[in-house]
Amino acid sequence: MSSSKESAETLYLGIDGGGSKCRATLVSSTGEIVGVGLSGPANPLHGLERTLESIEDASVQAAKSAGLADGNLSNIVAGIGLAGVNLPGQYEQVASWQHPYARCYLTTDLHVACLGAHRGDDGAVIVVGTGSCGFSAVNGKSVSLGGHGFLLGDKGSGAWMGLKAIKSVLTAADELSAPTQLTQAVTDVYQVSGLEIIERLSKSSSSDFARLAPRVIQAAEAGDQVAMNIVSSAADYVSALARKLLATQPPRLSLIGGISGPLSNWLADDVLKRIEEPLDQPEMGAVYFARQQHQRVLSDVVA
Amino acid sequence: MSSSKESAETLYLGIDGGGSKCRATLVSSTGEIVGVGLSGPANPLHGLERTLESIEDASVQAAKSAGLADGNLSNIVAGIGLAGVNLPGQYEQVASWQHPYARCYLTTDLHVACLGAHRGDDGAVIVVGTGSCGFSAVNGKSVSLGGHGFLLGDKGSGAWMGLKAIKSVLTAADELSAPTQLTQAVTDVYQVSGLEIIERLSKSSSSDFARLAPRVIQAAEAGDQVAMNIVSSAADYVSALARKLLATQPPRLSLIGGISGPLSNWLADDVLKRIEEPLDQPEMGAVYFARQQHQRVLSDVVA
Repeated sequence: MSSSKESAETLYLGIDGGGSKCRATLVSSTGEIVGVGLSGPANPLHGLERTLESIEDASVQAAKSAGLADGNLSNIVAGIGLAGVNLPGQYEQVASWQHPYARCYLTTDLHVACLGAHRGDDGAVIVVGTGSCGFSAVNGKSVSLGGHGFLLGDKGSGAWMGLKAIKSVLTAADELSAPTQLTQAVTDVYQVSGLEIIERLSKSSSSDFARLAPRVIQAAEAGDQVAMNIVSSAADYVSALARKLLATQPPRLSLIGGISGPLSNWLADDVLKRIEEPLDQPEMGAVYFARQQHQRVLSDVVA
Repeated sequence: MSSSKESAETLYLGIDGGGSKCRATLVSSTGEIVGVGLSGPANPLHGLERTLESIEDASVQAAKSAGLADGNLSNIVAGIGLAGVNLPGQYEQVASWQHPYARCYLTTDLHVACLGAHRGDDGAVIVVGTGSCGFSAVNGKSVSLGGHGFLLGDKGSGAWMGLKAIKSVLTAADELSAPTQLTQAVTDVYQVSGLEIIERLSKSSSSDFARLAPRVIQAAEAGDQVAMNIVSSAADYVSALARKLLATQPPRLSLIGGISGPLSNWLADDVLKRIEEPLDQPEMGAVYFARQQHQRVLSDVVA
């Protein structure tokens, strides 16, 4: 690329990095998507080096697919939304990265999901996939709820429902809780039964537990009492998150993530009627974030 | 040692191996303790090689302290009670060990704890320490309950109470559950607050969580509602375990483990009045197990 062309057009790169995947979208100054990239895990809590590799890999893919020679990133303004950087220590580690972009702006995966869902405007989102969390951004103020991770929280999430279900199956095997259809579901999904469940699952990842969640919701819808208790409890938590976010007066509220669809049937009516479709993907939210931050910096320079 | 002395006396070695420690006791044919040993973790679920090293290390210590040259184990009959070998895959792995003893008999840590508590006789035990589980052995039949491990079960245990408390503190910080004194307890024990809790504890071990349990019970006794719910729920599970074990008609029932003392105040009256002091330590139970198994083998040979 000639330097005259580079200075003529600013390209914005949006990155959405999470526990299993990292997505990149490259957008022209006119808002057209010109390149995309997809790589592996990018949660700094689970490995900083791997995270930075995934981000760079997805970025270079996006640059190459846009026809930039050798995937050169040095003229790109990047917005990065990352899981884990709500934690101050993780934020600092990533922010000190010697990144390959012209400019780089960092925020949470939740923030870019929210910006994406509302096309860059104010609003609130709840994410219920492998994990769970909530976020709102209204009049320059943001609120972040949950997202405490698989072991310590993420109540109502797919991993949480899967883990609860497996615990119920084990206590039912000891005849210390009610029998449940989930015993069969666990065998179907993981090909184990009885004490083998422990050997198979005692060190599993959150995503492995989340695989069981659709079957838990299915069993609940078929009237299994144990499954109904789990799914109701998940939905109660998500409804409580939603009410807390709605109290910040967001213009819109979206529910996103892998199990947002099946779980929405179980939400309280007052919450359900406020939920609207997300308008764009989180990686586009990261593009909006990059553009907003960069234009603010430029206007500061001009002023 | 001369071979004539070796053949003159059979020494029995009892091993109690768990997630944090491995204890060994060496006993003469007349029942006198002649040596002891203590080493590191011995739970094959967390590492087979480490487990076998810990067992051998504690054994050699016991042999040396009994004055056996070079800690020679080749004339010793060992009984080994191990966490994790209730799982068939783990049992097979340990059982195939090329052990250094004359004879070696393997069973669960729960079985030897039960034999110890009742001086080799029938009975039942509940262990509530870092983990939780129950066991009874009556008329040659045994029942094993719980012990599903930190992630999948161990309800009512120290680690379970600690984890529940930390989750409550995090949801209270989001104002999605009641405020609690446990917030201060977490700061006191781990020297962190707010979101730092997640960075500090999201990958902690069960024993790290169990460190909080005494403070949870303390807060419950001081009337903190969140703590009371956690401790009551723990006690309800332990009472249910106890009733299930009492249904097997054991002559005695003992409650052992690090938090058995403080938790016992919270148990149901019908359970509490049946609990009796353990008579011996688990490693002595492993000695009784070795002796019983070995004498059975010898009598089979004679018959």
